[in-house]
Amino acid sequence: MFLKSLLLVGFSLLVAFVVNVPTVEARIRHYKWEAKYEYRSPDCFKKLVITVNGRSPGPTILAQKGDTIVVELKNSLDTENVAIHWHGIRQIDTPWFDGTEGVTQCPILPGETFKYQFIVDRPGTYLYHAHYGMQREAGLYGSIRVALPDGESEPFAYDYDRSIILNDWYHSTAYEQASGLSSSNFSWVGEPQSLLIQGRGKFNCSSLTFASSDSNGVCIPSNPECSPYVLTVIPGKTYRLRVASLTGLSALSFQVEGHNMTVVEADGHYVEPFVVKSLFIYSGETYSVLIKADQNPSRNYWIQTNVVSRKPKTTPGLAIFNYYPNHPRRSPPTSPPVGPLWDDVAPRLAQSLSIKARQGHGRAPPATSDRVIVLLNTQNEVNGYRRWSVNNVSFDHPHTPYLIALKHNLTKEFDQTPPPDGYDFKNYDIYVKQNNSNATTSSGIYRLKFNTTVDVILQNANTMNVNDSETHPWHLHGHDFWVLGHGSGKFDISKDPKNYNLANPIEKNTVPVHRYGWTALRFVADNPGAWAFHCHIESHFYMGMGVVFEEGIERVGKLPTSIMGCGASKGLRLP
Amino acid sequence: MFLKSLLLVGFSLLVAFVVNVPTVEARIRHYKWEAKYEYRSPDCFKKLVITVNGRSPGPTILAQKGDTIVVELKNSLDTENVAIHWHGIRQIDTPWFDGTEGVTQCPILPGETFKYQFIVDRPGTYLYHAHYGMQREAGLYGSIRVALPDGESEPFAYDYDRSIILNDWYHSTAYEQASGLSSSNFSWVGEPQSLLIQGRGKFNCSSLTFASSDSNGVCIPSNPECSPYVLTVIPGKTYRLRVASLTGLSALSFQVEGHNMTVVEADGHYVEPFVVKSLFIYSGETYSVLIKADQNPSRNYWIQTNVVSRKPKTTPGLAIFNYYPNHPRRSPPTSPPVGPLWDDVAPRLAQSLSIKARQGHGRAPPATSDRVIVLLNTQNEVNGYRRWSVNNVSFDHPHTPYLIALKHNLTKEFDQTPPPDGYDFKNYDIYVKQNNSNATTSSGIYRLKFNTTVDVILQNANTMNVNDSETHPWHLHGHDFWVLGHGSGKFDISKDPKNYNLANPIEKNTVPVHRYGWTALRFVADNPGAWAFHCHIESHFYMGMGVVFEEGIERVGKLPTSIMGCGASKGLRLP
Repeated sequence: MFLKSLLLVGFSLLVAFVVNVPTVEARIRHYKWEAKYEYRSPDCFKKLVITVNGRSPGPTILAQKGDTIVVELKNSLDTENVAIHWHGIRQIDTPWFDGTEGVTQCPILPGETFKYQFIVDRPGTYLYHAHYGMQREAGLYGSIRVALPDGESEPFAYDYDRSIILNDWYHSTAYEQASGLSSSNFSWVGEPQSLLIQGRGKFNCSSLTFASSDSNGVCIPSNPECSPYVLTVIPGKTYRLRVASLTGLSALSFQVEGHNMTVVEADGHYVEPFVVKSLFIYSGETYSVLIKADQNPSRNYWIQTNVVSRKPKTTPGLAIFNYYPNHPRRSPPTSPPVGPLWDDVAPRLAQSLSIKARQGHGRAPPATSDRVIVLLNTQNEVNGYRRWSVNNVSFDHPHTPYLIALKHNLTKEFDQTPPPDGYDFKNYDIYVKQNNSNATTSSGIYRLKFNTTVDVILQNANTMNVNDSETHPWHLHGHDFWVLGHGSGKFDISKDPKNYNLANPIEKNTVPVHRYGWTALRFVADNPGAWAFHCHIESHFYMGMGVVFEEGIERVGKLPTSIMGCGASKGLRLP
Repeated sequence: MFLKSLLLVGFSLLVAFVVNVPTVEARIRHYKWEAKYEYRSPDCFKKLVITVNGRSPGPTILAQKGDTIVVELKNSLDTENVAIHWHGIRQIDTPWFDGTEGVTQCPILPGETFKYQFIVDRPGTYLYHAHYGMQREAGLYGSIRVALPDGESEPFAYDYDRSIILNDWYHSTAYEQASGLSSSNFSWVGEPQSLLIQGRGKFNCSSLTFASSDSNGVCIPSNPECSPYVLTVIPGKTYRLRVASLTGLSALSFQVEGHNMTVVEADGHYVEPFVVKSLFIYSGETYSVLIKADQNPSRNYWIQTNVVSRKPKTTPGLAIFNYYPNHPRRSPPTSPPVGPLWDDVAPRLAQSLSIKARQGHGRAPPATSDRVIVLLNTQNEVNGYRRWSVNNVSFDHPHTPYLIALKHNLTKEFDQTPPPDGYDFKNYDIYVKQNNSNATTSSGIYRLKFNTTVDVILQNANTMNVNDSETHPWHLHGHDFWVLGHGSGKFDISKDPKNYNLANPIEKNTVPVHRYGWTALRFVADNPGAWAFHCHIESHFYMGMGVVFEEGIERVGKLPTSIMGCGASKGLRLP
């Protein structure tokens, strides 16, 4: 089988060593990684980037369902800590290796090596990235691709399997961004300087206020590092393209000029196939699309990604869909296609509604829920600082990770008052700019009863600007959730649940809530641990747009010492 | 007494609270500090700076001999650790509060508060600064001024007491500098962009390759933050000016136009007074000079600092010596004075030889030493990396601080082989570029027998460039040393010790070794702990130009838990 041999080639290239254990499916994939600052020019502009083994995006983790992934991560940053989140991996029985600084672990100190070890229990397309401060913006991210067990096959056919990650890219450092956001003299990060496709973009060097021939070589348009990414295809063949987004800010559209795409997977779950010209994708989401190389093979085509939902100030990201044997660097003869209208919500909402579990593959959600939590998304001013909040509570990281504080009953380490389960439904007008003068910051969390079913309604609203509501992709750690519905306007608990899709809802780990709209999710609180749930826009989460769920903490096994070392866990003596 | 009332005013402004204990001299000076990245324009160019309580230089610590200083330092950096060294304070009985990351403590994590507590046991002029990676370059530094006990007076008279710190300033970040230095594709930090006098300098914005009217406001020549520092003086009065240098790279000259300076203190020790027009000062040194405002009082004068020892590419730093009641911002009518020739070693060596203990005040050194360690200073290529070495060993920080590893006998945490006590005296030609192909990196340290007397000869040599030898200011933690001699050329152990100054050597904690020269020091290993001894040029120490001395580790008391948390001290259970 081609897929398998491709994977095996990949393994021999990328895996430091592989230990065989008795069952075929349960191998250990052992990686040795080093995170380090290095100069890179992903969009022709040179800046310090956090690389993994010299690369950004870092090495792809290739595994098979049931494998154990071991990543020995050496922090070779100088004075800066690090933590890596394995995005989409539920960390069943290993909640301490979720990699979420402040929630599941202390940060990894410079000079130290931290061993992440977890099982990839489902096939699909996942991601990894830094989950500490705004460090993801520095370039520490990559792909995880989990194949089916031997002998099993996907419910769709393709000849080749490829992965790309979309990203937006800033020339300011993560420090500069964070300092601006956390200052009482608030400074917004602004729109990104470029869009990257698999780590490559093109910033217009001549647009800089300093000369492109700058003696420091800050921006070099001919740098091969920023030559476009090339996806070479053989005419007539079908490609499974795994498309992921890890943008800091931007919602994106993605298209391959002149080619249809059939969506077949979302966040590791099979999708009832539907065809798009342009795929909308939000930070933290992954999709597999099938693309047949069925166009005129004598030329190349543009792969393009555009900013949507915010007025674009960033030029589209471009890569080359290269029909073999045309030269991979040959530009397509056409102008890049025009993307969808940035401010048209309707097609984006329509796509969200189109994503359903593939027939015969979806797992049915529980018919009812035990608890409903409505989370109003607002932008606020809290104590003179610009923040994002849910239900007027802006999330404040504690210094002792929740998992440790909860397990060891260190009740002083975070606010013991949970944030509210809802907001003032009756009186709050989501369409107007609100004062929200009662907004606060808190490290309080939601405690969920183990094995109960929880509904979360994400309710969007107006920002601090008149007639403005943003798109927020919410990402849940440790679980997938069923997407029961999306709607416009204010969620009405007496009516809207009646229209929930309980028949074939998709399961996902990241989902957008559209402007002035709502999104309804359901999940079962069956994974003992402490789990972040947050807007995946880096600056929004940094500004407090997140919550933490705890469930079954009493079932969590002995925490590894390696996650300790900060806050109250510094001198903690384990029983 | 004026000095006392001045100090008391200072205290009421700067000290969070002062607890009085029975003896008058032994008060507790309690500071609450927050280290944070903030945008500042110290030389008109805007960049992120690590401030203490919003300031760079940070607040001045004002104390009296015998006081206990308590600094509760909150690390409000986002993802970066911190540690502060109290430069010149010997930390007798508190070796764990020396603030030297990797030597005496683990770094302080973001969000955490670390309590430094130590006694200032001698009057004089001292400093504090970050001692972690190249973090000092980010602007975390300040002054410590320790007054005599009540009723005691200095052996010289003055009317007013003022402190300034000289610094050189880079527009690149400490990360960028460190990344360049530690890359196999070596990139040197280059000459600084400006010189700062008490945190203020003037970069020529119009010299930027991008426009000074840049829309980002990166460089604004009219920014009040970079208006010159003003020292206002009353005609006829005598000023004690405490001048310190914390440059990253530059050796400096310092002068006040038209005024003589009488040197009276060096590194906390009284100097046999001598008069200079221009004071040479090296990174890590402090001096007190007396300046009488005895010139034409109808105008202002320039205070100027220039780069010496390296060919200057940095314009002189300027401040204003303002005769009251002239307007403090009124420029002097004259051009700034011409500084000393940058490449003339003779006057610098002469100044070094002029600094002797003040008659009736010096402490006599032991007449003989128990051990002589000769440290050859060289630049090398080690495993493809550019390094600085002593005796062909380039210092490599361990991940567990020495103090903890030594005290808890964690012998695997650093190289147990000590570096050599000398080099190939007979055959090594210090005047030629050497291959030094046997150079290595090591975390090995010198173990000194407690209470023995140790001589250290710093031997300078040629760098990796032909006809090039640099000036290195060496700083010893935990001790003062007697400066027994300086010489040109290769130190000859059979002859040179005969000319040691044992009569009235000055005690210092930082001393230069001049180009192609040697410097001989003597100290008593009587302070139990682990102590860094290193070139105070930030990039040189970062590149391995340092050693560590251990003495009397068995006499070190129980280590505080607060210094733990990294390397092998992470899970360390204290007895």
